[in-house]
Amino acid sequence: VTAAGTTDLVRSARDGDLRSVARLISLVEDGSAQIREITGQLSAGSGRAHVVGLTGAPGVGKSTTTTALISAWRERELRVGVLAVDPSSPFSGGALLGDRIRMQAHATDPGVFIRSMASRGQLGGLAAATPQALRVLDAAGFDVVVIETVGVGQSEVEIARTADSVVVVLAPGMGDAVQAAKAGILEIGDVYTVNKFDRDNARATLREIRHMLAMAPAPAPAPDLTAPTDQAAWRWTPTVIGTVASGGEGIPELVESLDAHRSWLTASGELLQRRSRRAAGEIEALVVAGLRHRLEAAGRRGTLDDRAREVARGRLDPYTAADQLIAELTHNQSQT
Amino acid sequence: VTAAGTTDLVRSARDGDLRSVARLISLVEDGSAQIREITGQLSAGSGRAHVVGLTGAPGVGKSTTTTALISAWRERELRVGVLAVDPSSPFSGGALLGDRIRMQAHATDPGVFIRSMASRGQLGGLAAATPQALRVLDAAGFDVVVIETVGVGQSEVEIARTADSVVVVLAPGMGDAVQAAKAGILEIGDVYTVNKFDRDNARATLREIRHMLAMAPAPAPAPDLTAPTDQAAWRWTPTVIGTVASGGEGIPELVESLDAHRSWLTASGELLQRRSRRAAGEIEALVVAGLRHRLEAAGRRGTLDDRAREVARGRLDPYTAADQLIAELTHNQSQT
Repeated sequence: VTAAGTTDLVRSARDGDLRSVARLISLVEDGSAQIREITGQLSAGSGRAHVVGLTGAPGVGKSTTTTALISAWRERELRVGVLAVDPSSPFSGGALLGDRIRMQAHATDPGVFIRSMASRGQLGGLAAATPQALRVLDAAGFDVVVIETVGVGQSEVEIARTADSVVVVLAPGMGDAVQAAKAGILEIGDVYTVNKFDRDNARATLREIRHMLAMAPAPAPAPDLTAPTDQAAWRWTPTVIGTVASGGEGIPELVESLDAHRSWLTASGELLQRRSRRAAGEIEALVVAGLRHRLEAAGRRGTLDDRAREVARGRLDPYTAADQLIAELTHNQSQT
Repeated sequence: VTAAGTTDLVRSARDGDLRSVARLISLVEDGSAQIREITGQLSAGSGRAHVVGLTGAPGVGKSTTTTALISAWRERELRVGVLAVDPSSPFSGGALLGDRIRMQAHATDPGVFIRSMASRGQLGGLAAATPQALRVLDAAGFDVVVIETVGVGQSEVEIARTADSVVVVLAPGMGDAVQAAKAGILEIGDVYTVNKFDRDNARATLREIRHMLAMAPAPAPAPDLTAPTDQAAWRWTPTVIGTVASGGEGIPELVESLDAHRSWLTASGELLQRRSRRAAGEIEALVVAGLRHRLEAAGRRGTLDDRAREVARGRLDPYTAADQLIAELTHNQSQT
């Protein structure tokens, strides 16, 4: 793609052309030579889209919930992007027939863009590609971007780092509230749904989750002192909603709760905090990649990988290795 | 702790004193001022312990399996360390009564050291503290160190990065083989157990898992060409074992399989590869922390956090931010 080509691509993506959006995501994902140029063009005025992370254990109904949310947002004429990081998601091609049929409704809708991030090699790579794809969708004017991840455990940290609002989907019988609390899942959600709410014990699960959330330590207040002094805006109390996503029950309440959370994020200053954390992670990864490249381009021996091997052999400790790398980097004046 | 104090601590930890082991882990976890000195002393001749990662969804019986493994290893007079990263693990204090009773057998055994990493704040911090704690246990002469994590999804990547051998614990009815395959769990295990093997459908689950593994693309061959040329050593075929961990069934086979995997790791050269990757991650994190500290200590404006905020506001793109940081770092000659 030529320089003029990327400018054209960015322009037509902003105009809503889904093929240009897809092309740009592929370019940034593949680490194209134009990635800096594209990212520079995309970054101007970004940050409009509401980024909703959606997570939960396999089988709770994440994709069904996403599909129901898309329908609700489309009724309000919002444009919706979906990044499916979950390899078990029907959006990632791992679909059961019923899920595929439900999704079909959105497949031809020009206001909906669905992208699987699951085929992008190892999971580690996904975390790197997701902010890039998100930037493209944001710049292309999508009002909401859903990032769907499968998750129990550490993976929620990733989604909490990336999303503005986190929806945790639970289901009755998929492990009770105590299990969820122990797994740390009650610390990361802004909105909880108990899906398959027509099942036995669903109400008991909902009550338990509410009870556990009420007992949890209060979240830290938003630290932005320039925010409005309305005390009610300082803290967000996570909501818990019963849903039957396949039938659309509870979905209006979920949409409403996400709207309220988005308003709170802005009013409290927490939106900028969350997005700054996300950006810091992205910059750090780029700094490390850049420094590594610089060392290698300078043809120096003793790069990171060589030192890592010495540490693995017990011949060098990691602090000394890190000090040596920093010293080399900060005293290397050669332009590469 | 004085310099002489840390030397004494390291010496008595190497002599098998569990209180010194616990003290050293606390010191490295807390980022003590002596951390470089301690790590330097610990790193010499490290790498003896077999690091076993053990993961699976909540409720499959991870802790019961770990407890059964400890008993088996103790019969062979091996010293065993356990790092419980899983906040729902009984080892982390989130115990149900039955689990606690089973563990009690090991609580007073001087050949067993159990440490919960779950209370070390946010999950992100756990990943940083685990290699440090591992180094202490390794230096203190533990023969096996089990790292227990809860996991479905991205968290396995972390464990696969840290462990020499990965055990994935599955259970019949906890999501079938297809679900497991989709969740990426069939890509990360060296040994699989189908626990609660006395349940209905357990044999069917075992067959399915074996079938899915057989269909999976072959793992990349170990790239170390200096390894023995025995072709059988090149690839490891994951084993699948039925267990009833609470009664000890299948545990001898699991221990045997882990022994075989450890032998393969050494023979194929894969052990050094895996440990080098682990060390590289640790060094990278230390380089980033060191560079950030250097920028801040130099009193420079425009540190990472300021730039992250600009990126979050859409006023700066992350590549330019990373370039600026690298330029500042590599042209800053002041010693800090």
